[in-house]
Amino acid sequence: MTKPLGIVSLVGAGPGDPDLLTRGAARRLRRAEVVYYDALIPPSVLRLCRKNARLVPVGKRRGYATLRQEAIEARLVRDARKGLRVVRLKGGDPFVFGRGGEEALALQRAGIVVEVIPGVSSGIAAPARAGIPLTHRGLSSSAAFVTAHDLLDGSEGDAVAARLSHLARGADTLVIFMAGAHLARLTAVLLTAGLDRSTPAATIENGTLPGARVRHGRLEELESLGAGRGDGPLLVVVGRTAALAGDLAGPLAAGARLAAETGAETATDTVAPQDAAETAAIPFRRTGR
Amino acid sequence: MTKPLGIVSLVGAGPGDPDLLTRGAARRLRRAEVVYYDALIPPSVLRLCRKNARLVPVGKRRGYATLRQEAIEARLVRDARKGLRVVRLKGGDPFVFGRGGEEALALQRAGIVVEVIPGVSSGIAAPARAGIPLTHRGLSSSAAFVTAHDLLDGSEGDAVAARLSHLARGADTLVIFMAGAHLARLTAVLLTAGLDRSTPAATIENGTLPGARVRHGRLEELESLGAGRGDGPLLVVVGRTAALAGDLAGPLAAGARLAAETGAETATDTVAPQDAAETAAIPFRRTGR
Repeated sequence: MTKPLGIVSLVGAGPGDPDLLTRGAARRLRRAEVVYYDALIPPSVLRLCRKNARLVPVGKRRGYATLRQEAIEARLVRDARKGLRVVRLKGGDPFVFGRGGEEALALQRAGIVVEVIPGVSSGIAAPARAGIPLTHRGLSSSAAFVTAHDLLDGSEGDAVAARLSHLARGADTLVIFMAGAHLARLTAVLLTAGLDRSTPAATIENGTLPGARVRHGRLEELESLGAGRGDGPLLVVVGRTAALAGDLAGPLAAGARLAAETGAETATDTVAPQDAAETAAIPFRRTGR
Repeated sequence: MTKPLGIVSLVGAGPGDPDLLTRGAARRLRRAEVVYYDALIPPSVLRLCRKNARLVPVGKRRGYATLRQEAIEARLVRDARKGLRVVRLKGGDPFVFGRGGEEALALQRAGIVVEVIPGVSSGIAAPARAGIPLTHRGLSSSAAFVTAHDLLDGSEGDAVAARLSHLARGADTLVIFMAGAHLARLTAVLLTAGLDRSTPAATIENGTLPGARVRHGRLEELESLGAGRGDGPLLVVVGRTAALAGDLAGPLAAGARLAAETGAETATDTVAPQDAAETAAIPFRRTGR
């Protein structure tokens, strides 16, 4: 006598570009009967789900949560107990600012079978696509991921600032998630920590997506680099490799476009050099020096 | 009049498990005529290449390089100029300790079209599969990636140690790559930085691969956690989330196994509860407290 046993897959959706979803994640989406997905998952990724799957948005956007964390966990448990294949789909990696650990523990405590499918972190991929390697011989041999959203004024904010100050002194490349609302305070903390005003810095909005907006310059002008942005998630990179965006962003964007255009499965495509030059000249949405 | 134009794709292979390769990476491998691959890329990933592709190992293992960096770059340029589709395949992500930035710059200077396909970093995926989230509400809100291989004695090593000391004070979770040969020195630096002897710590060898070996305990016993390891790459995680391995590693491994066993594309499979319990009891190769 067998009865259905559900499973919950905590799946990283990667940074947005559906090409950066893992094979394992794509397979979980094809199989899942229910998918609980975060706000930042683009439609191009959700299209990989099977047609009759139930898709449930549960994400937070700018503080507004469609479903509280405990309610999400309760739903995952409920659906798994029904014997459903459940996917909990999170932007980037589930265990990097994704609260995946909390959900894994809650499921495990409820006796639900759970697996994790790590994803490409937007903290790595968005800078990469913007021409910013997190490490680079002679420029950076360490990188740190941190959020800016606890960087408020007041005593708790001060403790966070003290930690960030150490991080700035210890990490060659700082990757700051959810930085949009805190650029002035962030700049002040990093300058106080001893970083040079001219330290290269970049802001990346909607990294890896077609509407990506990359601006790079110096730490002291971080606030103006972020000016005029939309409401997409903003990632900030501070460190010497951010200056490589000037050399690499254009060629990498052109390469990606050319690869997509010649994207047939055959390997015999030829491209006229003048077309390639035109492609290279198509401006990646980028400003800065 | 057109003539063939090659392209070099700098591709992240992910941490080892071929399921953690991105869809874009898999597509590049299917198309590539030449693949230059690092030493740690497992055969299960290389099997995704087309049958007639030329596969060239160029990796370093324990200091022995089959091909110097400049020679690799020269080969990439040469093959791209022949009009070939070239993949440069790197473990994890190409821009996280992968020297991908150097290769991208060299190719760009040579006028070669280059694209980057970010990958799942082993610094994220190996801990995740071992039940260690890099961030976790109440335990960690930041993570840092660093290597231990510059942590030698002498003045240069001291400068590296000073940076690492700041990192230890600023990052809630430390992920240390290539730590195998330096566990004693690493422990000393972190204790001197002020970390408590009982800070949770873990060593992960061959993370995400079938032979993964995870041990977790306390910082002060890091060296013994690494004892008896093989010659696979060793990742060290230090921070409070490393303690979650005790709760999560077993269930996640069982979940992954169950997901693989019931891996048909249909969603109607059922599993007997007693089978699931047996699966959960199969020991993940893990020791520790």
